[in-house]
Amino acid sequence: MIRVTVWNEFYNPHSPTQPELAVYPEGIHEAIASFLRADPSIEARTATLMQPEHGLTEEVLEQTDVLLWWGHITHHMVADEVVERVHKHILAGMGLIVLHSGHASKIFHKLMGTRTVDLRWHEDGLLNRVWVIDPAHPIAEGLDDHFDIPHEETYGEHFDIPTPDQLVFVSWFPSGEVFRSGCCWHRGFGRIFFFQPGHETLPSFYNENVQRVINNAVRWAYRPKRGAYITGETKAL
Amino acid sequence: MIRVTVWNEFYNPHSPTQPELAVYPEGIHEAIASFLRADPSIEARTATLMQPEHGLTEEVLEQTDVLLWWGHITHHMVADEVVERVHKHILAGMGLIVLHSGHASKIFHKLMGTRTVDLRWHEDGLLNRVWVIDPAHPIAEGLDDHFDIPHEETYGEHFDIPTPDQLVFVSWFPSGEVFRSGCCWHRGFGRIFFFQPGHETLPSFYNENVQRVINNAVRWAYRPKRGAYITGETKAL
Amino acid sequence: MIRVTVWNEFYNPHSPTQPELAVYPEGIHEAIASFLRADPSIEARTATLMQPEHGLTEEVLEQTDVLLWWGHITHHMVADEVVERVHKHILAGMGLIVLHSGHASKIFHKLMGTRTVDLRWHEDGLLNRVWVIDPAHPIAEGLDDHFDIPHEETYGEHFDIPTPDQLVFVSWFPSGEVFRSGCCWHRGFGRIFFFQPGHETLPSFYNENVQRVINNAVRWAYRPKRGAYITGETKAL
Amino acid sequence: MIRVTVWNEFYNPHSPTQPELAVYPEGIHEAIASFLRADPSIEARTATLMQPEHGLTEEVLEQTDVLLWWGHITHHMVADEVVERVHKHILAGMGLIVLHSGHASKIFHKLMGTRTVDLRWHEDGLLNRVWVIDPAHPIAEGLDDHFDIPHEETYGEHFDIPTPDQLVFVSWFPSGEVFRSGCCWHRGFGRIFFFQPGHETLPSFYNENVQRVINNAVRWAYRPKRGAYITGETKAL
Repeated sequence: MIRVTVWNEFYNPHSPTQPELAVYPEGIHEAIASFLRADPSIEARTATLMQPEHGLTEEVLEQTDVLLWWGHITHHMVADEVVERVHKHILAGMGLIVLHSGHASKIFHKLMGTRTVDLRWHEDGLLNRVWVIDPAHPIAEGLDDHFDIPHEETYGEHFDIPTPDQLVFVSWFPSGEVFRSGCCWHRGFGRIFFFQPGHETLPSFYNENVQRVINNAVRWAYRPKRGAYITGETKAL
Repeated sequence: MIRVTVWNEFYNPHSPTQPELAVYPEGIHEAIASFLRADPSIEARTATLMQPEHGLTEEVLEQTDVLLWWGHITHHMVADEVVERVHKHILAGMGLIVLHSGHASKIFHKLMGTRTVDLRWHEDGLLNRVWVIDPAHPIAEGLDDHFDIPHEETYGEHFDIPTPDQLVFVSWFPSGEVFRSGCCWHRGFGRIFFFQPGHETLPSFYNENVQRVINNAVRWAYRPKRGAYITGETKAL
Repeated sequence: MIRVTVWNEFYNPHSPTQPELAVYPEGIHEAIASFLRADPSIEARTATLMQPEHGLTEEVLEQTDVLLWWGHITHHMVADEVVERVHKHILAGMGLIVLHSGHASKIFHKLMGTRTVDLRWHEDGLLNRVWVIDPAHPIAEGLDDHFDIPHEETYGEHFDIPTPDQLVFVSWFPSGEVFRSGCCWHRGFGRIFFFQPGHETLPSFYNENVQRVINNAVRWAYRPKRGAYITGETKAL
Repeated sequence: MIRVTVWNEFYNPHSPTQPELAVYPEGIHEAIASFLRADPSIEARTATLMQPEHGLTEEVLEQTDVLLWWGHITHHMVADEVVERVHKHILAGMGLIVLHSGHASKIFHKLMGTRTVDLRWHEDGLLNRVWVIDPAHPIAEGLDDHFDIPHEETYGEHFDIPTPDQLVFVSWFPSGEVFRSGCCWHRGFGRIFFFQPGHETLPSFYNENVQRVINNAVRWAYRPKRGAYITGETKAL
């Protein structure tokens, strides 16, 4: 059983209503948890910003194999202490899947070491064609050589990330941009996947192929247990 | 002084005339050598298929720092012995720049170990937008974040290559494809760069940005001298 | 069920007896197949040089998920036609595990594109300490941070391989050498792992940790089915 | 002219004397700056912890092409504000060379995203043999296939770093450890090199090969000017 926690900010400091509710009546986190729960080998819970400790207590993280992260306008409200805690668990082997605007989150920035907030974007709801660059990668399992999302926010290069350890997808947009839309990194014992689709006012998380990618990514990022190194002063062997 | 040899098949077994002559009256090789010669630190010669040993004798290769390779319909006519000779020089430190349809050449296939002939293509002369994915790479020096080639053959993924050691460019085409269009690999002491533009009936090699990329690539692929390893049976140190 | 074929040259053109028989009475191939068969999810057969088509017919390869390769003094006797066939299956998704002196085989050379025969070596039967460089890698599953093989042939850098896609192990030898001893590459749909231990006159294949690594590598290299790309001339999408 | 700034903590909160003074009478920073100044194409200045803003003001960084970093027991005393400033300059293209115990510095941790403090170590002043793993890399220019430092602190794996973009050196120690001792990464427009030798009580920075590596690394990490991306909301192209 893979224990997943889906984190979503689910809070808009400027408005009592979430824009996402028009598309995802129970929030993005519940929409994602819901399709993951359809897989009997996955157990999915959710957590959100306004819960105590953002719902990411030490206990929750200890029981999380893979954490999904969606955030947009409240990145700055995430407590540094929680970011440190999440970071510690990732290095020990908890998987992390960063979705869409999560690229600007504190945890992704901390793991990457670059200005991951930096990319081009425009909100026109254009077609998003996702090309499979590494068809042998487990995250591409079951996909054709490309798939289309009819309406998405456009993201474009240059995206300020370290070179991915594996580049799985590149997105094409009719307005002329390309974007490294599926990227894998290893940090410590943890596996990290960034996936570009998922604007809050568009139904991408209902898309069958998007769901397949996220399900594949959960399996790829999963480790059966946390790891630890021997470090510090040792004797000559 | 960087000593460059530009190789072009420059032969059409089906026709007495080269299609490329309409655009490049002296052949693709002379067009490329010509703009390289405008750089006083580069010394460029050419070689073609129908010369003895395809113009790539041991002596020529010994005096070549960087070899450029353009071929299309005569890949099978290149003698295995010459391919072995070129391969040996690349592993010892001669740079190689593979242009456009050179992806299907014997030497590129031999260096990569995959079916590099495999990619999607169609000849519609559409726009080719080249995005800089690695703006800090020497081959991207002096470029904006993207540049346009008004008319090119379309190449699309999946392209069956080993993961590039560095991915410098990704191309966008209006017909919906993306393509890893600037890729670097290291093999032995040699540096290899593949660059996608350059269809024989289109004037891409006159494009200022294409010329800049090729000039940058020559500098990147250049090594001042050949290298050698200590190998074989050795004593315990 | 993972279907494994263990290939061994098992032939010495200079002598009617195999040196390996003193340590592996039924040959290296049977020793490896034997410990793999102890895993109920693996089905292991063997093949050797002197069988028709070296035991690697189209039918055998079609029914092989992961091929293991041990060879030493008869690399040149392996027919090019069989090498082409094995290569085709690897690019389509058959896994390949190259053991010890298999680094100089035609198939490994063909996949890597470099002079993989080139490395330092001496046969003193010294200690071989294998360090885990990537403890989060599936091939390192269940290992401590290093393990010792009491007696092995010494291999040393420089080893002329393309930069591994993942570097899992580095070996230490008391005579002063280091060696990249566990290396992963992806070629087409296939996964390739090179593992350094396994001299024919030493009992390394009985070592519990060596067996664990090979078992892990079989699981890592396994794909449930062959893959295929869309390639060639396509229409604009 | 390459403008280098060599940073050294040069302060011991527990003692009025620096242990390094016995070996480097003017400090490690002056020893390094001194041999770099012997190269007429390098202009080297120094900066230390107890200077205002640790000697790393905005003005100094603007005039620095490559920053070298040596620190050991005062990592926690480096102001976060200065770390942010250095980070910003690295992402814009300033090179960074992290020496020895600098692996535990705030800036290296911030760039890597892992617990770079984690490695094995013991101070026995044993031989340190540095093997060249990537002989074609500019940082290995002019070296034999390995070189020896007679006495160094022992560092051993596992070292908790992201997989290097290029692995140039691996160290061997007679006590049985190996260590990835020369590692390159790219972050934004900046190039980062970690080099393992350089314990404060041992004369490694007087070693001819160590000096050559550092000089090579300065050249490799140098960019003629800072870079910048187009980011943020853009129009459809």
